[in-house]
Amino acid sequence: MEKDELHALFQDIAEPSQAATRGKDSGFADLGFAKVDLTRKQRNGYPEVIYGEGKTAEQIIGIIETMRKQTVNILCTRLSSEKFEQIKKVEPDAAYHKEARCALVNRAEVKKTSSYIAIVTAGTSDIPVAEEAAVTAEAYGNRVERIYDVGVAGIHRLFARLDVIRAAKVVIVIAGMEGALASVVGGLIDKPLIAVPTSVGYGTNLKGVTALLTMLNSCASGITVVNIDNGFGAAYSASMINHL
Amino acid sequence: MEKDELHALFQDIAEPSQAATRGKDSGFADLGFAKVDLTRKQRNGYPEVIYGEGKTAEQIIGIIETMRKQTVNILCTRLSSEKFEQIKKVEPDAAYHKEARCALVNRAEVKKTSSYIAIVTAGTSDIPVAEEAAVTAEAYGNRVERIYDVGVAGIHRLFARLDVIRAAKVVIVIAGMEGALASVVGGLIDKPLIAVPTSVGYGTNLKGVTALLTMLNSCASGITVVNIDNGFGAAYSASMINHL
Amino acid sequence: MEKDELHALFQDIAEPSQAATRGKDSGFADLGFAKVDLTRKQRNGYPEVIYGEGKTAEQIIGIIETMRKQTVNILCTRLSSEKFEQIKKVEPDAAYHKEARCALVNRAEVKKTSSYIAIVTAGTSDIPVAEEAAVTAEAYGNRVERIYDVGVAGIHRLFARLDVIRAAKVVIVIAGMEGALASVVGGLIDKPLIAVPTSVGYGTNLKGVTALLTMLNSCASGITVVNIDNGFGAAYSASMINHL
Amino acid sequence: MEKDELHALFQDIAEPSQAATRGKDSGFADLGFAKVDLTRKQRNGYPEVIYGEGKTAEQIIGIIETMRKQTVNILCTRLSSEKFEQIKKVEPDAAYHKEARCALVNRAEVKKTSSYIAIVTAGTSDIPVAEEAAVTAEAYGNRVERIYDVGVAGIHRLFARLDVIRAAKVVIVIAGMEGALASVVGGLIDKPLIAVPTSVGYGTNLKGVTALLTMLNSCASGITVVNIDNGFGAAYSASMINHL
Amino acid sequence: MEKDELHALFQDIAEPSQAATRGKDSGFADLGFAKVDLTRKQRNGYPEVIYGEGKTAEQIIGIIETMRKQTVNILCTRLSSEKFEQIKKVEPDAAYHKEARCALVNRAEVKKTSSYIAIVTAGTSDIPVAEEAAVTAEAYGNRVERIYDVGVAGIHRLFARLDVIRAAKVVIVIAGMEGALASVVGGLIDKPLIAVPTSVGYGTNLKGVTALLTMLNSCASGITVVNIDNGFGAAYSASMINHL
Amino acid sequence: MEKDELHALFQDIAEPSQAATRGKDSGFADLGFAKVDLTRKQRNGYPEVIYGEGKTAEQIIGIIETMRKQTVNILCTRLSSEKFEQIKKVEPDAAYHKEARCALVNRAEVKKTSSYIAIVTAGTSDIPVAEEAAVTAEAYGNRVERIYDVGVAGIHRLFARLDVIRAAKVVIVIAGMEGALASVVGGLIDKPLIAVPTSVGYGTNLKGVTALLTMLNSCASGITVVNIDNGFGAAYSASMINHL
Amino acid sequence: MEKDELHALFQDIAEPSQAATRGKDSGFADLGFAKVDLTRKQRNGYPEVIYGEGKTAEQIIGIIETMRKQTVNILCTRLSSEKFEQIKKVEPDAAYHKEARCALVNRAEVKKTSSYIAIVTAGTSDIPVAEEAAVTAEAYGNRVERIYDVGVAGIHRLFARLDVIRAAKVVIVIAGMEGALASVVGGLIDKPLIAVPTSVGYGTNLKGVTALLTMLNSCASGITVVNIDNGFGAAYSASMINHL
Amino acid sequence: MEKDELHALFQDIAEPSQAATRGKDSGFADLGFAKVDLTRKQRNGYPEVIYGEGKTAEQIIGIIETMRKQTVNILCTRLSSEKFEQIKKVEPDAAYHKEARCALVNRAEVKKTSSYIAIVTAGTSDIPVAEEAAVTAEAYGNRVERIYDVGVAGIHRLFARLDVIRAAKVVIVIAGMEGALASVVGGLIDKPLIAVPTSVGYGTNLKGVTALLTMLNSCASGITVVNIDNGFGAAYSASMINHL
Repeated sequence: MEKDELHALFQDIAEPSQAATRGKDSGFADLGFAKVDLTRKQRNGYPEVIYGEGKTAEQIIGIIETMRKQTVNILCTRLSSEKFEQIKKVEPDAAYHKEARCALVNRAEVKKTSSYIAIVTAGTSDIPVAEEAAVTAEAYGNRVERIYDVGVAGIHRLFARLDVIRAAKVVIVIAGMEGALASVVGGLIDKPLIAVPTSVGYGTNLKGVTALLTMLNSCASGITVVNIDNGFGAAYSASMINHL
Repeated sequence: MEKDELHALFQDIAEPSQAATRGKDSGFADLGFAKVDLTRKQRNGYPEVIYGEGKTAEQIIGIIETMRKQTVNILCTRLSSEKFEQIKKVEPDAAYHKEARCALVNRAEVKKTSSYIAIVTAGTSDIPVAEEAAVTAEAYGNRVERIYDVGVAGIHRLFARLDVIRAAKVVIVIAGMEGALASVVGGLIDKPLIAVPTSVGYGTNLKGVTALLTMLNSCASGITVVNIDNGFGAAYSASMINHL
Repeated sequence: MEKDELHALFQDIAEPSQAATRGKDSGFADLGFAKVDLTRKQRNGYPEVIYGEGKTAEQIIGIIETMRKQTVNILCTRLSSEKFEQIKKVEPDAAYHKEARCALVNRAEVKKTSSYIAIVTAGTSDIPVAEEAAVTAEAYGNRVERIYDVGVAGIHRLFARLDVIRAAKVVIVIAGMEGALASVVGGLIDKPLIAVPTSVGYGTNLKGVTALLTMLNSCASGITVVNIDNGFGAAYSASMINHL
Repeated sequence: MEKDELHALFQDIAEPSQAATRGKDSGFADLGFAKVDLTRKQRNGYPEVIYGEGKTAEQIIGIIETMRKQTVNILCTRLSSEKFEQIKKVEPDAAYHKEARCALVNRAEVKKTSSYIAIVTAGTSDIPVAEEAAVTAEAYGNRVERIYDVGVAGIHRLFARLDVIRAAKVVIVIAGMEGALASVVGGLIDKPLIAVPTSVGYGTNLKGVTALLTMLNSCASGITVVNIDNGFGAAYSASMINHL
Repeated sequence: MEKDELHALFQDIAEPSQAATRGKDSGFADLGFAKVDLTRKQRNGYPEVIYGEGKTAEQIIGIIETMRKQTVNILCTRLSSEKFEQIKKVEPDAAYHKEARCALVNRAEVKKTSSYIAIVTAGTSDIPVAEEAAVTAEAYGNRVERIYDVGVAGIHRLFARLDVIRAAKVVIVIAGMEGALASVVGGLIDKPLIAVPTSVGYGTNLKGVTALLTMLNSCASGITVVNIDNGFGAAYSASMINHL
Repeated sequence: MEKDELHALFQDIAEPSQAATRGKDSGFADLGFAKVDLTRKQRNGYPEVIYGEGKTAEQIIGIIETMRKQTVNILCTRLSSEKFEQIKKVEPDAAYHKEARCALVNRAEVKKTSSYIAIVTAGTSDIPVAEEAAVTAEAYGNRVERIYDVGVAGIHRLFARLDVIRAAKVVIVIAGMEGALASVVGGLIDKPLIAVPTSVGYGTNLKGVTALLTMLNSCASGITVVNIDNGFGAAYSASMINHL
Repeated sequence: MEKDELHALFQDIAEPSQAATRGKDSGFADLGFAKVDLTRKQRNGYPEVIYGEGKTAEQIIGIIETMRKQTVNILCTRLSSEKFEQIKKVEPDAAYHKEARCALVNRAEVKKTSSYIAIVTAGTSDIPVAEEAAVTAEAYGNRVERIYDVGVAGIHRLFARLDVIRAAKVVIVIAGMEGALASVVGGLIDKPLIAVPTSVGYGTNLKGVTALLTMLNSCASGITVVNIDNGFGAAYSASMINHL
Repeated sequence: MEKDELHALFQDIAEPSQAATRGKDSGFADLGFAKVDLTRKQRNGYPEVIYGEGKTAEQIIGIIETMRKQTVNILCTRLSSEKFEQIKKVEPDAAYHKEARCALVNRAEVKKTSSYIAIVTAGTSDIPVAEEAAVTAEAYGNRVERIYDVGVAGIHRLFARLDVIRAAKVVIVIAGMEGALASVVGGLIDKPLIAVPTSVGYGTNLKGVTALLTMLNSCASGITVVNIDNGFGAAYSASMINHL
């Protein structure tokens, strides 16, 4: 924890008028359409992440250029392949993870943890959300184990992989439809479990609301939940836990 | 199936003006506040059941008296113990099932089926709904096996009773909270499964809506669902299936 | 029921680490993106069904190839005609049911039941869901009777076909809009009734939620319900009942 | 239609400052807590009705005293028996309709219509709402025919009374649970049908919302709907139609 | 009312097996995908209407051909212009009402009523729903007065047209957004008012649900409500009332 | 605006560890169960208000004692008369406004504004919410005009009072049921309008949600909305505007 | 306030039949598809605004032509660039604000206020809604300060701009996702705050409903709320306040 | 981790028929109304917890007696003081935490962690949920720091305690109303944050649903969420993380 930088941050909070004139020294870079947070790593342990949805390729490039000097492995989530093509021309080191719909820029080797995060899905259709989680976790220096398509309709598939799940330091369970897998895994492990409902399903699945409700009401303890399809958020929290 | 009585019923449908003058011959007894259905057994296989909620003890007694001549084992569901006390004075053969909140009147021996209905609950708090189902099923001549408190938080309890569940002709699974038990059982048996969501839970359980949604969206096949806390309805359908 | 295979299955559950090394002997085939369930027939009475939505044609072909050696009449539901065209090139015996949006592969003669499933719809727009049910039921060896467009706006159409509905061993009622047909049929038959709400309607129909709620709250007994537009699920349960 | 009074009303609208000084001549009597509408009969054909819920007995008495000089058969709905007892002491000609939870004050003979309103209920528990409708309709000079407990679970009961329903000038159908009765009646008559959903039911009935949705989405034409348990409103509209 | 035909209809209800063999004499024509209701005019006063949504042009043509012999002014609602072009080739007398998205076939002169239906909208965007209502009402022989764009944001526009609204026999009020117009008109007239919520609006308008709720909870009496955007249904009921 | 005090506040924000030792100097008084905000007047223009719901009388007394030295006219909202009786014993200058369910303590004369806030209700049952607003506004030094029971069912009552509404500096409109009054008033004035939905109504009123939705979707401009029954919040904002 | 014109308006209300013959003198111009409100400026302080959604370019041009003689700076919101291109051909002085999706026609210099409205957004994706607000406010003669992308994830960005926010006469806070920014700003200022929820977000954001609920339930006082994405409405109210 | 006991557990899963005869050796004790899970500590790291809601005092005593031999610090949550009084008579070492509504039985010293869990509340009314969390965490051997009533309406209170929050190993944030505190804290710390929505609030708070939605949609990363009012669940997960 860099105490000095943190202190400076709060100084900025205390004296807003000075910060306004100091510009970038105030802890962010003001691009007009965006105020890029330059002290998030000090406050939160990780640099700002670019949420690609609803931003133009030009805006994303502007943010990347601002972050590039001080951040490696800049992560951009919810990025269409069309926008990536435009970004790629300006940022030639950018790499796209198609299934995860994520890009990484200014890439560098990151030391991986020895403990790992287990990422478990109920079905094949949940894999894009799982890959968003996996790419995020790996970008943050975590070892990841993928255990896909072990939903409760064929519960023996889960039992066959239970050892690798139980040996993780933290487990992410990703499921759509009725989301029952989170409860079953939660009842069989002694590690923190982060559940991610997905919008996979139809009718009364209500675009993932059913899986969300299932996970929030689990009879198994030790389960916390993130927003529907939020693979990134689950991995972010899991990474914090895995690095403890 | 008594074809002749059925034919008479449809005659009544065809000639309403005559039926109106024929009174009770029209297939029902008109008590003013209620028109007691006297041909339900011919049409549906079971006599009318008295839904006690929202009826006074006096109204219930009136309906019992009308049914008594032609029906044995008159079932009254959703009956408070206070109302039962009033009914008991007039109908001394009435028996009350406290946990199930049901009463049986005009009781008679019914031949039990050799095949049985398995009634499975996730928790202890689901037992009142399970007992409503069990009392109904037994009144209709079904053998019943009760397997209570085997929710997925301790899934080995379910596996320990799986043999008796798998050997049933039809299975009723009753669960509140997130209702995941239905999916797990559904993935392990080859018999029709009727799922009953209960209002057990709090917060986003939404008085049983979460368990209902879970059951409707199950990734396991072969599951059909009834209304929240509707133990009677599940047993009614299960009895039809068990008698096939 | 093949007891020995079932026992082996539970052995696998007990010793996950062995199962993991045994690979396919563990009861499933691991394709990476999917773990194809190879013991579902032993557990559930029917082989795994491929849910086509959200899977690529390549993934579906991979699963078919895995199942082909041990399963006949492989069913793939929710399959677009575009994907089918791709599959057809690799699986020339595949047959597409356009209205049902289902494909059958590795087809073989199945002995049909003498008893039958009645499939009843309220309107013409409910026919695609009904055909998904019919194709599923026939693939599972059931005789099917189709009674389409007999909704309560013209209730005499229903009465004209009531004999064929009453003679079924199990009845599927499919309706959108307000879904009242399920209650009316339920009040006139003495067989299990599985109700399927459809998303046909507009405004406060809420994409089928209204029909679902109607069916769950039916004043007629003996009705169980599946998810909106889930013709497959209704037929799966009906087939279990019809084979009892 | 008293054109002169109506013209005066609109004059008041045009010149609010004058009306304010004219007091009661402005078309209402200002009691502080209430502004009693004295021109509603000219505008709407019926005098103001007192909605008892959320008003004290004192407030209700104050409104009655204001209306008494110009209005006969003052109707107060949603009135508890406790409040009525207090009112009765001051208004000795007040009569209470217990099941309807309505009171009538300043009673006078009203000439009844020769045509009649049919009030039809699905069950016994719907009767309180039906009686609110019946008392309202009769207070407004309508002949009423009550046809209670003819829900679709025993549809022959409906057919037995179909003649009296078909002969009405306007029909009110009152149903809780799934509310299917409205669609069935709507498909069999050629008169305007006003449907009243009731809060009778449990679980996913959602306090009447299910019956409301059913009625709004009816496949039968010619059905309009009022708020849940709004027997008064249905009778008010029906009376307007019956007097055409 | 043709009593004899009605009697025959109920005969069919009574003896379903005979009706099945009699085919079209049973009161409908069975086209396989549809059972065209041929006795609706006897039962309901109007012939069956073709709901175009979810039906192919071929299906619609088939139904028109079946109805043509006994019905004039066949109405088809919710019909896209694309489908109409296909129908027009086979049915050259078909006329399309673009704004209303309705077609009329087998057209004939109908005697118009002297009393009229007032159709009132809050805004310009509500006009398509209003035209569906107007075309329907005119097809059924009603005189119609259109009063468009008189919403409460400029309430003097409403007052300027109040005379023509008050002189109608029945009033249809069509509004989106918050739907307040229905309450205001309801407070100023003494005729039945049918309110139609439209899906015009955004955000918490929830595709018309807000306007629907407003109309159901109106503090003005004498208002009944139909489904969102259901111009046809409002006109159907209004026509019944206007012909009394 | 006391700049110096504000600066001190932000100093506290900057140096949390010092603030913690300084105790009350940090801008709040720490009572363990509560941290009473002592700088809210500097930041927000008004001192903290005590929300009585969910606090014990003892807790409320503790907070009053802390605030008393620096604040006059301490306002406590959502206070039952039972709790007030307990408080009154310790704070003898406390005054209770029964209809508003508010108490004022440490009362002092406040200079009233010459401009005023108009508080308008649709019905008699909305008065408790209106009084909460009126007591709040008066405690904050605003002149208030009450215009009660002028809902749109009798719109001439509104027009008769329009002059006094139009002459206000800011208008609060309070309505339950369908809440249409807000739109009508909004269309007739040129001042900011704050709309308060109330939970008055039944059935699909959904405890005020309907009135809220109506107000959020108003076709009239210049309307902003607060939470259901939030008379206090409306008056707080109106007071800010009235003091501009 | 032009009293005479206002009086004339109410005369029109009083005598609707005269107004109907007087045509445009009645306070509006009747274009058939629209009744353009010509007295809104007298009643509400601002002329009618054209809501572009759901209107054709032809309809919009017709309304502009009607308003042009008496109104400068005619504002058209929710206008696609396609429609604008069509309008531009006929109205060459029209100017389009692309990000705001607004057009201004018949432009004229308006004197700006010395006090200003602060428009604050949580993120970059909220800017289109903010620009709709800014264009509206500027068209109505308000000075505007834009403070974009200062959401609570990096709260120091907000503190750095707090001075400019606190110095505004009224503040608009625009936020999607969880909308927490409104509460934080509300706790730090002593001016009226109008909160605008946006539909930015995914999953349980429910298209802006979450942000709306957050804002309605804020623990900070002095916050009023408008419909989701309603930048126009917020600016309209803010302008009224800023001009006090 | 006791591998041998775990292996035995899975043996039970594998051979259900044996387990059924072995009784308690199967990993649970069968009390009829409950199957007490005796291997939860091996599987999940903590023994079973008794959820007191919906269980009778007798049932709870039965479960305690079963657990007492192998478990210390048996925790019973959601326990009313009435039930506790009954339990206390039989279990004299039981201690009740009134504000938390929890009881601890068979108490023993547990070694506390050196790292701690920070429990933060927005208001005073959230304290009962916070105490449920604190009692749970302490029972599981965690050091706890309580920081109560630091909601965003007076954000300086939060900043004054930020140091103690930032120094925790895991943070629990508990808030009702709009729940914005979770986002603000989340943006200022670099540790896992578990957010607990409470049912504190009124109107559109919807019994905690609003706070839940806020927390799920937080713009700050690193936040996971549990069910409304679920202090126990948050502490359970936090304890797992704190013990890593």
